[in-house]
Amino acid sequence: MYRIGIDLGGTNIAVGIVDDAQRIVSASSAPTRARNGAGALLDDIAACVNEALVRGGLSLPDCSGVGIGVPGTCDTARGVVRYAHNIGWDGVPVTAELSRRLGRPVFLANDADCAALGEVAAGAARGCGSALMVTLGTGVGGGFVVGGRIWPGHRGLGGEYGHMCIALDGELCSCGQRGCWEAYASAAALIRQAGEAAKAHPESALNTVVLNGRTIYETAAAGDAAARAVTARYAEYVGMGLVNFINALFPEVVLLGGGVSGAGEALLAPVRTYVESHAFVRDAALLPEIRAAALGGDAGIIGAAALAN
Amino acid sequence: MYRIGIDLGGTNIAVGIVDDAQRIVSASSAPTRARNGAGALLDDIAACVNEALVRGGLSLPDCSGVGIGVPGTCDTARGVVRYAHNIGWDGVPVTAELSRRLGRPVFLANDADCAALGEVAAGAARGCGSALMVTLGTGVGGGFVVGGRIWPGHRGLGGEYGHMCIALDGELCSCGQRGCWEAYASAAALIRQAGEAAKAHPESALNTVVLNGRTIYETAAAGDAAARAVTARYAEYVGMGLVNFINALFPEVVLLGGGVSGAGEALLAPVRTYVESHAFVRDAALLPEIRAAALGGDAGIIGAAALAN
Repeated sequence: MYRIGIDLGGTNIAVGIVDDAQRIVSASSAPTRARNGAGALLDDIAACVNEALVRGGLSLPDCSGVGIGVPGTCDTARGVVRYAHNIGWDGVPVTAELSRRLGRPVFLANDADCAALGEVAAGAARGCGSALMVTLGTGVGGGFVVGGRIWPGHRGLGGEYGHMCIALDGELCSCGQRGCWEAYASAAALIRQAGEAAKAHPESALNTVVLNGRTIYETAAAGDAAARAVTARYAEYVGMGLVNFINALFPEVVLLGGGVSGAGEALLAPVRTYVESHAFVRDAALLPEIRAAALGGDAGIIGAAALAN
Repeated sequence: MYRIGIDLGGTNIAVGIVDDAQRIVSASSAPTRARNGAGALLDDIAACVNEALVRGGLSLPDCSGVGIGVPGTCDTARGVVRYAHNIGWDGVPVTAELSRRLGRPVFLANDADCAALGEVAAGAARGCGSALMVTLGTGVGGGFVVGGRIWPGHRGLGGEYGHMCIALDGELCSCGQRGCWEAYASAAALIRQAGEAAKAHPESALNTVVLNGRTIYETAAAGDAAARAVTARYAEYVGMGLVNFINALFPEVVLLGGGVSGAGEALLAPVRTYVESHAFVRDAALLPEIRAAALGGDAGIIGAAALAN
């Protein structure tokens, strides 16, 4: 049997038909036209599913179920999207509505949780009983898989990993609190840190590029001292949040995803060094492996489909 | 059927025979004579179990299984105590050894995890699918129950909730790191904070008592301004760690146990206020209830027995 995975983003709907080997055998996408209301967007999603099926020479009876990842707070047990600001959803009973349109059982989770589940199903955490996936993007997101299942928090209200406080009275966060991990470890924070370093070091090549995750790591790789100091400190900030999670919950593996994780070993190696020297468990051989996420954009689709397992 | 719960502490072995209604129908205890080696201590535990059975007019065939909570790092899947410094255990295959002595299946977990599971089975978190229990004692411990099961971390290596960093470059912790939650929210930290306040405020009644959790809260209750400031700030420190956990993992309920939790509402009320004003979820009605643990010393026995469910 196949399963249908839907990754609903603020910009695009992405649908994949996933086989038992966790491969996307057929896909389709469409723009997210949220302004027309939830009903119209759900119609678009159903149409996108049908297109993916047609492309794969399949039909709904070939599929045991449907999973959808939504960028917002999801009451997974009730199948209701509680809030999803990007798409203006508030209390949308998405599993009932999609199930009515598609005639298959539908399962719901937050999109970051789906990405984590996808990496466990078929990616860098394949076969792991537990995994933390942290997404270093505009914000810091995460998903925790335990016993092979996502833990989205009671009523889906967890998942705000970026808003764990690591610095009493620290940097002001966009959420209004101080010292949140996100205020130190997001791509936005990295860019802010690089901007401060550029100002403090007029000789730095950081002053000659448009600052983003890629250019900052490229400048560091070229040997720029200020950029190297920024990326070294940034890895410590990323590591601090990971250490907190590892000390308390100790997943089998930790995955880093999101834009900044594109830096690869330039990020991962110093993060590992920090974790090895700061985690409560001091035997590096016992610590969770810290790896880059492997599936990129497919993680959300494969993870959504895995909800229907 | 009955189940046998064993709470192995650094000072005492406590055994209870637990019925299907989660009541301890018969109990026994003995001193923990760790110096004689693991084999002798396991013999003492088995003898203590037999005494509890005899007292209850029961025998081993009346019991479906045995659970034991041990103060250390437990590889629950393999049934091996990895380290338990208090009792000098290092790599003790406790489930195999006890099963051989008792002829029943034996299950192992960390003692703090057992206490959390006991509160879910029969205490302040009864019926909750997920719960965080935090123990405010000499250190800060914890246990996370999710889907009705303890999550002890991969290979039992989690559970070091007190060593989540809340303060970048903060107070030095006994673990060697800076800014650990435990360095702010343990009973030892409370006493240190009260000692500093006593020095700074020679007029404070804190200077007239032997400082411990009880005397500090009593002094605050009597209206002493310095003591009130200490307990108010301490509640914020406790709340900070809870907010971190709630933001990321959002358990259905949060329980506070350990010595300091004896302060009751004098601690709980300001902790709730802090959490309501600092958690990412801003609707207080949705936040996890924060309650005092209810079972005291029985939690560890009932939770250990629940391992055998």
